[in-house]
Amino acid sequence: MQEALIKEIVKKVVDTLEGGKTIPIEVSARHVHLSENHIKELFGKDYKMSKKKDLSQPGQFQYNERVTLIGPKGVLKGVAILGPARDKTQVEISKTDAIALGINPPVRESGDLDGSEKIYIATEKTVIEANESVIIAKRHIHMTQEDAKRLGVKDKQLVRVRINSDRPVVLEDVVVRVNSRYRLSMHIDFDEANGAGYEDGTLGEMII
Amino acid sequence: MQEALIKEIVKKVVDTLEGGKTIPIEVSARHVHLSENHIKELFGKDYKMSKKKDLSQPGQFQYNERVTLIGPKGVLKGVAILGPARDKTQVEISKTDAIALGINPPVRESGDLDGSEKIYIATEKTVIEANESVIIAKRHIHMTQEDAKRLGVKDKQLVRVRINSDRPVVLEDVVVRVNSRYRLSMHIDFDEANGAGYEDGTLGEMII
Repeated sequence: MQEALIKEIVKKVVDTLEGGKTIPIEVSARHVHLSENHIKELFGKDYKMSKKKDLSQPGQFQYNERVTLIGPKGVLKGVAILGPARDKTQVEISKTDAIALGINPPVRESGDLDGSEKIYIATEKTVIEANESVIIAKRHIHMTQEDAKRLGVKDKQLVRVRINSDRPVVLEDVVVRVNSRYRLSMHIDFDEANGAGYEDGTLGEMII
Repeated sequence: MQEALIKEIVKKVVDTLEGGKTIPIEVSARHVHLSENHIKELFGKDYKMSKKKDLSQPGQFQYNERVTLIGPKGVLKGVAILGPARDKTQVEISKTDAIALGINPPVRESGDLDGSEKIYIATEKTVIEANESVIIAKRHIHMTQEDAKRLGVKDKQLVRVRINSDRPVVLEDVVVRVNSRYRLSMHIDFDEANGAGYEDGTLGEMII
């Protein structure tokens, strides 16, 4: 989604629905977070990664570099790398991607990688094996403490969000994640978005 | 889904939950229904199509033959052809497929093709243009008059169905379709299935 459109939606939400439960939605495409060691292995010890653009969540950004994911049944090329580097490499894909690759990752919150799937990650330089790295991201809402207070929810609470579209759905078990560095936004993947008729600007309504 | 598994689920539903609102679910992969004229154009005037297998809805079957869908941005090979032939060619794909092909079909009920998308359909023999043929199937439940009576719903009624999974959702605007030739089953596409954590045997619960 474009930055201008995100700002417009956030403004609309804040201006016209203050006190309401309207939630802006963003769709996460497949991406990887790499550890410092894996960056060195994949791109070279002295290679300097370059930033492409900032993402909507403050401090998060995308690199210009991309990688290839290799599974037993398929390959996904041109997969985005998000920064900054993490302690452990984490690969976030949709179920559709998982079927194409031939793997079966669990639905998990970011950072919860114990027992998750393995995948091979490749650049033109080399291929590495990333054990316990692949998850399907559990749907979640980023928000600040102020948002949480206004919406009447707490960190880690599970809520429901109705998607208003020509294929309306209520997404259940949506995890609330509260942090002062966050910006109010619900993150879903392309399967959830396409199955719910999401288009740029589609809004969600939180149901507690 | 395998025939044995479908039967097991239907039996379970009928035996142990009689009077309940449990609905078996099947996932529809991309497919085409061809008109007699298009079959002749694509395979030859005197070509005899051959049946591969019967489908869960009585009288519906899949042919051994397959076609290729060609859009402005992509190509999908090996797409299933379902029979019997229809008056008008109808192509049913997911939003994910539509994005890959570069087209924007509406979400519609089967047979409602006015103003729908166009696509090129190819075999090794030729390519045809199929105008007003492509839709994203609106989620629906096939059932008999007896099912409808037991479940307390009517033909064309919109209901909600909760999918019990590790990514639970409530699908809204699910169309009830009643016909004595039908067998109780909810049909969703792979976007809806993957976004809802569907696996073989996952059941739905109708909420009126």
